[in-house]
Amino acid sequence: MKIAVIGGGSSYTPELIEGIILRATQIKADEIVLVDIEAGKEKLEIVGSLAKRMIKKSGLPITIELTFDRVKAITNADFVLTQFRVGGLDARASDERIPLKYDVIGQETVGPGGFAKALRTIPVILDICKEIEQYSNDAWLINFTNPAGIVTEAIHKYTSVKAIGLCNVPINMKQMTATILEVDRDNLNMSFAGLNHLVYATKVFVNGEDKMSTLIERIAEGRNMNMRNIHDAPWDKEFLQALNALPCPYHRYYYMMDEMLIEEKEAAELRGTRAEQVKVIEKGLFETYKNPNLDVKPKELEERGGSLYSEAAISLISSIVTNDHAIHTVNVPNNGTITDLPDNVVIEVSCTVNSEGPQPIQVGKLPPELNGLIQQIKAFEQLTIEAAVTGNKQKALLALTTNPFVPSSKVAKLLLDEILEVNQAYLPQFSMKALV
Amino acid sequence: MKIAVIGGGSSYTPELIEGIILRATQIKADEIVLVDIEAGKEKLEIVGSLAKRMIKKSGLPITIELTFDRVKAITNADFVLTQFRVGGLDARASDERIPLKYDVIGQETVGPGGFAKALRTIPVILDICKEIEQYSNDAWLINFTNPAGIVTEAIHKYTSVKAIGLCNVPINMKQMTATILEVDRDNLNMSFAGLNHLVYATKVFVNGEDKMSTLIERIAEGRNMNMRNIHDAPWDKEFLQALNALPCPYHRYYYMMDEMLIEEKEAAELRGTRAEQVKVIEKGLFETYKNPNLDVKPKELEERGGSLYSEAAISLISSIVTNDHAIHTVNVPNNGTITDLPDNVVIEVSCTVNSEGPQPIQVGKLPPELNGLIQQIKAFEQLTIEAAVTGNKQKALLALTTNPFVPSSKVAKLLLDEILEVNQAYLPQFSMKALV
Amino acid sequence: MKIAVIGGGSSYTPELIEGIILRATQIKADEIVLVDIEAGKEKLEIVGSLAKRMIKKSGLPITIELTFDRVKAITNADFVLTQFRVGGLDARASDERIPLKYDVIGQETVGPGGFAKALRTIPVILDICKEIEQYSNDAWLINFTNPAGIVTEAIHKYTSVKAIGLCNVPINMKQMTATILEVDRDNLNMSFAGLNHLVYATKVFVNGEDKMSTLIERIAEGRNMNMRNIHDAPWDKEFLQALNALPCPYHRYYYMMDEMLIEEKEAAELRGTRAEQVKVIEKGLFETYKNPNLDVKPKELEERGGSLYSEAAISLISSIVTNDHAIHTVNVPNNGTITDLPDNVVIEVSCTVNSEGPQPIQVGKLPPELNGLIQQIKAFEQLTIEAAVTGNKQKALLALTTNPFVPSSKVAKLLLDEILEVNQAYLPQFSMKALV
Amino acid sequence: MKIAVIGGGSSYTPELIEGIILRATQIKADEIVLVDIEAGKEKLEIVGSLAKRMIKKSGLPITIELTFDRVKAITNADFVLTQFRVGGLDARASDERIPLKYDVIGQETVGPGGFAKALRTIPVILDICKEIEQYSNDAWLINFTNPAGIVTEAIHKYTSVKAIGLCNVPINMKQMTATILEVDRDNLNMSFAGLNHLVYATKVFVNGEDKMSTLIERIAEGRNMNMRNIHDAPWDKEFLQALNALPCPYHRYYYMMDEMLIEEKEAAELRGTRAEQVKVIEKGLFETYKNPNLDVKPKELEERGGSLYSEAAISLISSIVTNDHAIHTVNVPNNGTITDLPDNVVIEVSCTVNSEGPQPIQVGKLPPELNGLIQQIKAFEQLTIEAAVTGNKQKALLALTTNPFVPSSKVAKLLLDEILEVNQAYLPQFSMKALV
Ligand SMILES: NC(=O)c1ccc[n+]([C@@H]2O[C@H](COP(=O)([O-])OP(=O)(O)OC[C@H]3O[C@@H](n4cnc5c(N)ncnc54)[C@H](O)[C@@H]3O)[C@@H](O)[C@H]2O)c1
Ligand SMILES: NC(=O)c1ccc[n+]([C@@H]2O[C@H](COP(=O)([O-])OP(=O)(O)OC[C@H]3O[C@@H](n4cnc5c(N)ncnc54)[C@H](O)[C@@H]3O)[C@@H](O)[C@H]2O)c1
Ligand SMILES: NC(=O)c1ccc[n+]([C@@H]2O[C@H](COP(=O)([O-])OP(=O)(O)OC[C@H]3O[C@@H](n4cnc5c(N)ncnc54)[C@H](O)[C@@H]3O)[C@@H](O)[C@H]2O)c1
Ligand SMILES: NC(=O)c1ccc[n+]([C@@H]2O[C@H](COP(=O)([O-])OP(=O)(O)OC[C@H]3O[C@@H](n4cnc5c(N)ncnc54)[C@H](O)[C@@H]3O)[C@@H](O)[C@H]2O)c1
Repeated sequence: MKIAVIGGGSSYTPELIEGIILRATQIKADEIVLVDIEAGKEKLEIVGSLAKRMIKKSGLPITIELTFDRVKAITNADFVLTQFRVGGLDARASDERIPLKYDVIGQETVGPGGFAKALRTIPVILDICKEIEQYSNDAWLINFTNPAGIVTEAIHKYTSVKAIGLCNVPINMKQMTATILEVDRDNLNMSFAGLNHLVYATKVFVNGEDKMSTLIERIAEGRNMNMRNIHDAPWDKEFLQALNALPCPYHRYYYMMDEMLIEEKEAAELRGTRAEQVKVIEKGLFETYKNPNLDVKPKELEERGGSLYSEAAISLISSIVTNDHAIHTVNVPNNGTITDLPDNVVIEVSCTVNSEGPQPIQVGKLPPELNGLIQQIKAFEQLTIEAAVTGNKQKALLALTTNPFVPSSKVAKLLLDEILEVNQAYLPQFSMKALV
Repeated sequence: MKIAVIGGGSSYTPELIEGIILRATQIKADEIVLVDIEAGKEKLEIVGSLAKRMIKKSGLPITIELTFDRVKAITNADFVLTQFRVGGLDARASDERIPLKYDVIGQETVGPGGFAKALRTIPVILDICKEIEQYSNDAWLINFTNPAGIVTEAIHKYTSVKAIGLCNVPINMKQMTATILEVDRDNLNMSFAGLNHLVYATKVFVNGEDKMSTLIERIAEGRNMNMRNIHDAPWDKEFLQALNALPCPYHRYYYMMDEMLIEEKEAAELRGTRAEQVKVIEKGLFETYKNPNLDVKPKELEERGGSLYSEAAISLISSIVTNDHAIHTVNVPNNGTITDLPDNVVIEVSCTVNSEGPQPIQVGKLPPELNGLIQQIKAFEQLTIEAAVTGNKQKALLALTTNPFVPSSKVAKLLLDEILEVNQAYLPQFSMKALV
Repeated sequence: MKIAVIGGGSSYTPELIEGIILRATQIKADEIVLVDIEAGKEKLEIVGSLAKRMIKKSGLPITIELTFDRVKAITNADFVLTQFRVGGLDARASDERIPLKYDVIGQETVGPGGFAKALRTIPVILDICKEIEQYSNDAWLINFTNPAGIVTEAIHKYTSVKAIGLCNVPINMKQMTATILEVDRDNLNMSFAGLNHLVYATKVFVNGEDKMSTLIERIAEGRNMNMRNIHDAPWDKEFLQALNALPCPYHRYYYMMDEMLIEEKEAAELRGTRAEQVKVIEKGLFETYKNPNLDVKPKELEERGGSLYSEAAISLISSIVTNDHAIHTVNVPNNGTITDLPDNVVIEVSCTVNSEGPQPIQVGKLPPELNGLIQQIKAFEQLTIEAAVTGNKQKALLALTTNPFVPSSKVAKLLLDEILEVNQAYLPQFSMKALV
Repeated sequence: MKIAVIGGGSSYTPELIEGIILRATQIKADEIVLVDIEAGKEKLEIVGSLAKRMIKKSGLPITIELTFDRVKAITNADFVLTQFRVGGLDARASDERIPLKYDVIGQETVGPGGFAKALRTIPVILDICKEIEQYSNDAWLINFTNPAGIVTEAIHKYTSVKAIGLCNVPINMKQMTATILEVDRDNLNMSFAGLNHLVYATKVFVNGEDKMSTLIERIAEGRNMNMRNIHDAPWDKEFLQALNALPCPYHRYYYMMDEMLIEEKEAAELRGTRAEQVKVIEKGLFETYKNPNLDVKPKELEERGGSLYSEAAISLISSIVTNDHAIHTVNVPNNGTITDLPDNVVIEVSCTVNSEGPQPIQVGKLPPELNGLIQQIKAFEQLTIEAAVTGNKQKALLALTTNPFVPSSKVAKLLLDEILEVNQAYLPQFSMKALV
């Protein structure tokens, strides 16, 4: 089995390698190709060497190849994993900085920041998909590239590639819930529904017993439930009780918009934006990776934020390979799963996974308190995709205006102008339009 | 034909009377009953006397009766018109003032203000409907009481009364469009779809020709398009062009949230909120009404804001009476008209009206830029109604949190506490809960 | 205004001409082009001469042109009317005869007969539409060609032409209802919903009063309610009362399948199929038309069956031209009007018609007793269209198997083979496939 | 764990007991109560004694109790299994015989026969559910009583019981497919969707490879695919290829209606209807059961027809008890799973089953060739349920008229009259109406 990793120079790669080693009996990989761009050469080499040492230590018959030739990497791959970042951390920093100027939340995956990242990423992913269609038509594409839901929707709308969007948020919510409820993760049934970075756990059961209210109580008492990259503002108990569902950590941006904005602005001033912090972490991490005696995933990687990322990815692949019908929460076309959303949009939802891929478990109608927000964000996402593919500025303006972080169409215009300007190098679809 | 007017002491009543006189050949009323509450005695008497003088002048065989006995007024009525205001202008002033404290838009029909008004109004309207069910089962209820969409939805969800929600916004949008395009209103075809105070004109045609872009251009050039009670912030041309639909004046609160909030706060400080201004206007108006020689609708009423209100109402009644299949934009149950909304919610939409009432003209799917906002507000409205009927504080909290003016669940809680406190006298449904 | 009539040699043309003359003040035609194919030369000339005499008599400034050049006829037309019959009455006779061999109802517009007619007609109508797209992009296409619903759906699925499917069944149901209820047709409100030749009147009101049960009682007592071409089997009173809706005359084929089949077989033996009878009628009719002194529509045309056909057509055109918002029952894309049918199928439904064409009045969910049959027939229609466009024999087999007249997939195969064989000359889409 | 079996005297009971013994480590039952009615005393005793001997042989700590006290049986049960037959085999024989008189297919679970069985069964099952709501509120009801889909839908529409309808058709289709494809059943992924006795396998995969066309080819070559009680008419290859889905054995009644009717009439004359044959089989079976040395399920039971019935039931219970997320095809509320059906109807569909019960796997839109038939039968089922619950004869007439076996509303009336007459003793809901 051949696995191609696009954005192979990512600091997350050792996690993936570790996962492939741990699940070797199930997924039986024999060829891993790490592909990157010229600009990522150094990272690719450092990460690639570490990966080779890890495989060597495992004694498994797996070859690791490093390349800049994407077509070669894709050809005959069984799984293509995408974890690249167009524009690197500098682009991310601008996604985080620009909105703050206008008193708007600046985050790399949601709001105007996620919008900008989508504009940069979608043209690249569609190119990759064209290559998959041609050179490994039957491959599964597992997309981690954020905004993972939007990117996966673009793939399904414009290509025939069998793509699954994967995010580590649901698995972390499940892990933290298990910790909080003091149960084994396997004894915990959680139903997830929503969008990427806007997903809710709508049911929490242990041994057939509903544990939602217990969970909410404990979270409201301060039991931690967060991601490394999100400010840990506490949830209001009465609100969670009214909601009777568990919001994801990113929901803080919507349900505590005022607080989060204030915190972000302070943090940006005092400590730099998250991208700016990550730059520092990454530097250290790569220093560690360089150590020729290191042949395991170093503990320091955990600071980076992608907790359980590899477990999510490798167990998903394993379910496809072994047809084990296990439950995974992934990003797939809606196709009626959430009744009130269009068929062709991508949602994040619990699926039973077999050798034909993820089969979404029916959700039906969501209550208005969830549906209202999901609909609004999905409108933003649909418009973002249309703008990213066509380079249509009107759609881009509508996308930003529709986003709840943006207080007015006038601010949307200012944001759009600055985003298009700063990202010009990565947005050929818009520059071409400019000529028209 | 008998017409009962609930809230008969409203300063708008002379408009209605004028309309009934002007359309006398079509609607053939012979009995008008103005009903009010004890607290409205003085207004009822002043307005009632003027109404009698107007009818007398017309020479029409119509009797006018004034009463506090609502059941008597309703019994055997053919049309029941509701234009009452629970709590009067003082309550309205508090709806406008409270949100401002938290940097949230305070408006009587949308946002937290509209929420509070709905909580006060829905118990009263449901009582009225029970009486209609019993004493004039076949009557049409024409509801003007704001928030007209929410109130009408509550009626349809909880009673069997044949209710139509009516707002003067669509007819004014059409009138202003006619003026701007310099055409006769009858030659103008406009398709309206959305919610009350969130309605869009999605098509504008003159003689089979699409005039949307012309209209947008002229509006962007500053041709006026507003209601008396809404700050006249200019629309952004590029935004309207991207939208390719005409938003209603109230849309400013959503698309220019920042600007409108600033203006509101300034205005409240300098000139008082709209309720506070209206109090003054009303005082003068009632002085004028008292003049025993006055037997026509005085010009000053126009300042009050209900422009074309009577024309909308009386021509609607006329279409039902005469079965003329004319087009009116009214609030009716969705029942699939806007595909992506639930069947049992009320929407504001163009209808062909015959003797069986308004028949909505099919809309289908709305584009994401309209659908996203409409869905969010409809979620807010559904939750508001559930809270208003059940007195469930959790639903009330979810309603406010879902509203886009409210930046966080924490602010929602503060608003809710204050609204429930201040309006206690009008919210028996919540006080009863308090005892539980 | 220019009107092109495709299939101008039809014996119905004098009806259209009469209508255009009678409504001259509204529709103001100045150019009528009758177009036909070489094989219809004689008919075209006879009918064309009569049409010219009728116009001459009227004194109106309208020119009539006869041509075989379809593109010329279509170029710059404002309305294109299609009333052609591919294969003529011989093909119709075979549509009626073939099914009878297998004990299956043989009818020109429904069942296997309608299927065969659709296969012949759709390629021609799509060619016509391509020409309209090119030469008169803004023209309205009014399609009478049967099966009118299926043909109109094909147009909407595969072209951008503004097409309306028109059938004289609803207007006749309304006329007969008016007669039975002894009211003026204008005082009668009827709501129609369903598919072409499968339409129900779901509401019957006179002056705001529900008259469905009165109507049903009178029909059950034997008051006539039929079309000239359908055997007049009486409706069962208890069944109609249970249905609480008025089925169309064609519904007899579904609700009295046994009786209708027996009658058809007898009739075919004794009197010939309807096509065979019509041949005789037509012969006489054309003899009458030849009379150079005839300058009005002759009374004999009524025997032909197209009762009120011209009134339906010309009043529809008049509503578009004059923007009168009148109610017409026509075939239009569903787009959510009947909730449980797909958006892109064509339904027959009451519409308010203005200068932008027919605007369907919302229907919502139909009760199961109507929905079950409509869904099944719509499945048959969708498959028929797919087969007609692609020449895919599998879809054709599924279409016939899905039709309720066909008792088994084996009979469907026999029918299909014979239909494809007999109609080979008119089915290039299938012959091409045969080579594959 | 306590299991109550209603209709405990059924000859299928030994199968259930065998299953409980075989899966004892998973489901850990300790109390089984077999409940029947007085009329079933003898059967209950024979079967009960055999069951006790089987348990004794197993050495498991399970008690078996026999009772006529249904409430006692239900009280505190964890699972209630329903496999009773109101009216016994005599009623079934009349369900099979009556339609044949009118040249209509007579079958115990579909068509007019299934309709009659539903009318008899639904009042009884709703009574049982009322008892469950009161005495074992948390129990799972596993319903085998036919027509299992209709009966389960009635339960979900009118009670709050957690009911699952179970049929052995899907598991048999899977078993036969495994045999035909020569693979292990566990390596076979099949997706089922449709209604009970109208279910299709829409996907057949082995190791990620699509095997539908191979399967169809082999079936068309004559590889057996049937149930014991259905005449084994061969499937047409071209039809199955066009369908590209595997119909269930009962689909023969729809797709080969002519052939099946002929065969049924012949069989009824020569061998008696299926009920009449089963009477003979049962007699022998109970003789065998009486043997005091018999302490295993006797092989002869297989002739009876309920193949894999116990495996389906016990593995389903096991999935709920052990939370194993295995895939089962069961009857559950649609709730959007099949997009084009209403939310509140019951469908038969592949589910992943955990301790909260079956979670349907999303199906989405079905192609028209499946949707048309499913919609029509679901309309029949909805009307049947409404008739069974209300005793409304109009709904009953509409139900029968809607069924595709019934050629006309007139035949429907004759059938209805005879069914109501013959079953009078079991249809209190209709007799009460008769008095009105
Ligand atoms: N879904 C999840 O749970 C999850 C979690 C963490 C990160 N992510 C996402 O994974 C992606 C990678 O994150 P990272 O922090 O490792 O980023 P990074 O900046 O380290 O980028 C990874 C690699 O991508 C390469 N790259 C850039 N453009 C490329 C292109 N066009 N083609 C191929 N390679 C290219 C870079 O050279 C780099 O080596 C991001 O999109 C991030 O949002 C997802
Ligand atoms: N839909 C529209 O286009 C439109 C336009 C303008 C005003 N309105 C609405 O019409 C309503 C009346 O407005 P207004 O400014 O005349 O208000 P108002 O304060 O003058 O009230 C009208 C009358 O209602 C009476 N009233 C109060 N509570 C009552 C009750 N429980 N039963 C009967 N009467 C009662 C008052 O005594 C008063 O005489 C408001 O709800 C307002 O929002 C609607
Ligand atoms: N919708 C309705 O209410 C309604 C009522 C009656 C008839 N019809 C339909 O109208 C159509 C015409 O009926 P008719 O009895 O007059 O038929 P017809 O056989 O007289 O045909 C009309 C004309 O069409 C011509 N024609 C044949 N093929 C043609 C082609 N490819 N292009 C142009 N012209 C062509 C013929 O030469 C003939 O002159 C039929 O499809 C019929 O089903 C509809
Ligand atoms: N879903 C499936 O896969 C499947 C397979 C086979 C049979 N079935 C169904 O299972 C049921 C039982 O079949 P069977 O052949 O054993 O029937 P049966 O005639 O032997 O009846 C079983 C028992 O039910 C009892 N009974 C009758 N009325 C009762 C009532 N009101 N309350 C309690 N018990 C009552 C009878 O006395 C009898 O002992 C039938 O409805 C049949 O259609 C389902």
